[in-house]
Amino acid sequence: MKFESVEKQLALIRRGVEEIIPEVELIQKLEQSIKNEQPLIIKLGCDPSYPDLHIGHAVVLRKMRHFQDLGHQAVLVIGDFTGMIGDPSGRNKTRPQLTLEETHKNAESYLDQAKKILDINKFKTVYNSTWLDSMSFGDVVRLTSKYTVARMLERDDFTKRYKSEMPISIHEFLYPLAQGMDSVHLHADVELGGTDQKFNLLVGRDLQREYDQDPQVIVTTPLLEGIDGNDKMSKSLENYIGLNDTPEQMYGKTMSISDDLLERYYLLGADVEVKTMEEIERELADPNTNPRDLKRKLARRLVSMYHNESDAKEAEAHFDRIHLHKGIPDEIDIYHKNENETILDSLCTTATVSSRSEGRRLIKQNAVKWIGELVTDPLFKPEPGFGEGVVKVGKRRFLKIIEK
Amino acid sequence: MKFESVEKQLALIRRGVEEIIPEVELIQKLEQSIKNEQPLIIKLGCDPSYPDLHIGHAVVLRKMRHFQDLGHQAVLVIGDFTGMIGDPSGRNKTRPQLTLEETHKNAESYLDQAKKILDINKFKTVYNSTWLDSMSFGDVVRLTSKYTVARMLERDDFTKRYKSEMPISIHEFLYPLAQGMDSVHLHADVELGGTDQKFNLLVGRDLQREYDQDPQVIVTTPLLEGIDGNDKMSKSLENYIGLNDTPEQMYGKTMSISDDLLERYYLLGADVEVKTMEEIERELADPNTNPRDLKRKLARRLVSMYHNESDAKEAEAHFDRIHLHKGIPDEIDIYHKNENETILDSLCTTATVSSRSEGRRLIKQNAVKWIGELVTDPLFKPEPGFGEGVVKVGKRRFLKIIEK
Repeated sequence: MKFESVEKQLALIRRGVEEIIPEVELIQKLEQSIKNEQPLIIKLGCDPSYPDLHIGHAVVLRKMRHFQDLGHQAVLVIGDFTGMIGDPSGRNKTRPQLTLEETHKNAESYLDQAKKILDINKFKTVYNSTWLDSMSFGDVVRLTSKYTVARMLERDDFTKRYKSEMPISIHEFLYPLAQGMDSVHLHADVELGGTDQKFNLLVGRDLQREYDQDPQVIVTTPLLEGIDGNDKMSKSLENYIGLNDTPEQMYGKTMSISDDLLERYYLLGADVEVKTMEEIERELADPNTNPRDLKRKLARRLVSMYHNESDAKEAEAHFDRIHLHKGIPDEIDIYHKNENETILDSLCTTATVSSRSEGRRLIKQNAVKWIGELVTDPLFKPEPGFGEGVVKVGKRRFLKIIEK
Repeated sequence: MKFESVEKQLALIRRGVEEIIPEVELIQKLEQSIKNEQPLIIKLGCDPSYPDLHIGHAVVLRKMRHFQDLGHQAVLVIGDFTGMIGDPSGRNKTRPQLTLEETHKNAESYLDQAKKILDINKFKTVYNSTWLDSMSFGDVVRLTSKYTVARMLERDDFTKRYKSEMPISIHEFLYPLAQGMDSVHLHADVELGGTDQKFNLLVGRDLQREYDQDPQVIVTTPLLEGIDGNDKMSKSLENYIGLNDTPEQMYGKTMSISDDLLERYYLLGADVEVKTMEEIERELADPNTNPRDLKRKLARRLVSMYHNESDAKEAEAHFDRIHLHKGIPDEIDIYHKNENETILDSLCTTATVSSRSEGRRLIKQNAVKWIGELVTDPLFKPEPGFGEGVVKVGKRRFLKIIEK
């Protein structure tokens, strides 16, 4: 197997990466790989406690895709065993433990979504229960004898919890060690992960040394901010763009990010090439550029990546219909509606109409419109995946409805 | 099965005990046992990292004997699995881990010695590898999820090591939990242990609660001081009276303890009854008592317990021959000799004779005596187990030789 030169490979590997620890070892490994015509084994641990992925999760999957494109062997480790423990990384409390069944179900959904990013012909999926399940108590004793309590407590989140007297269960100490054993089992050359995984990844490196292997190189990717720009993207904070979002949802959410995030979203979310990135930086620096235009381009690009170009065009048209629709004031009330609610329900709940009977009467009188279309059925509800839209009641009442 | 009244049982159980946690639950358990005519299950964990037991170890075995005498079920848990981890209790560093074979060999020796104290017809021996070995990594995760790091670090020895930055390996956290699982497996009603085991014993109590069992009652016994009176009795400090010591060694070592220790040795070492103990306290308080007489009685008693009365008498005679032998000054040089050394070797090493040839000449001239007996063979060495004795060379040179 023929590989690109070390320089060319490094250029792609470095793109949008936070740290490579240590880069000099990565260079050696790439040189060896070229010399022996052998791909490197690239490990990525997947935490199957999330059934829904978002473009924040995708950052590290895109990095894996880079390694695939360079000809290396992608190995996705489904942490079905470690999912039972629950990764305590970055948590300020003990996680609920999942059962193996829950974990397997989530893993299938994870893989389905990861396939939108990875080259599906070139990756291997393994379940870490395969080797961790067969470890006995004695094996665990030997494993845990290789790490000290003090070193484990040095991990940021453990330090914080210990100092503030928040409980840390002892089984949480087993997580970094168990996922580190995955690296030993796979003889991983490189492990990828978000910056919040740095400690765990380094444990894998340490354990490989303890088990007389060449230690893996760590490649960490930044955590993408959520669309609110305050926190990292996360489902529980409802500031995410999901890989399973509809084109309309994806487009609308992208349009809602602040201008500050544009560069990060282009680099990490849209994974643009170095040359394109330079152009975008130039445009952003130009006072004549309207950031809105760059945002529209980003939104189209993201929808094209996860759906296709024609979906992107339609999503843009949908967005324009709502937002450029004449006569809608700039500031209107916003309501997040549940799936089963009808338009009439939403109007009643928000007191946009004074009563259910007033609502029915207005619908009968053709005075209610949903995204410019007349609502004639009192039981009408928008199709799931609509993202957002505006209801107009009479001439002056407006309500923006957003999908929960 | 018929049992004594709660009061009668308690009187014996309380003798020489440090703590009963909580006594009220012990009373309930005894009442239940009487009512249901069912013996209580009394657990004692044996640490098989010591192949040689001493009367310090015997304290808790005697407490177990009391429970046996009251009709309860003694269960000795041989920690062959936990021995592999090494109990970190009271240690200021990580212990070396033993192999299962080393542990089994030590366990046999432990049991041989324990049989000198226990009623051998009424005890059950179990190896904790039987159930701990078959625990999987997943079982260990579930077990370790039941205890927090902070609680574990509250243990005295861990706190000290953590604060002084001495390494604690994570596997040491597994020891208290593993031995606690023994209590769960055995459905123990009572667990016995030295005061240094209190933390571990309480973990067993906690785990039984977590596994929906009635928690065991903890009965701790004091740690017996060594014959030097400074530290707890321990082989490494060479301040112990071994259960396998010869009558002469046992007698001699007992005679060397300070008067302050007499009461503790009577109570904990000789396990005397309450009435006898009261007598001894009275005698000790009487200014007319010579503590030496009480020490002789104690020494006879200890030898009788571990050997027999006639051995005790002989050991006393042997002791008197050495110590009361006329013409031996009170203060003479002391030498600890190795097993293979001859008397002549010892005399040369200590420069009691000026040269090996002077030594040989003196032996030829019938000028050397060992405990009053003429030494005629230059290669003569005392039989192992002699304890101690005095060599007389000519009329004025003396050397007390003590077995190493």
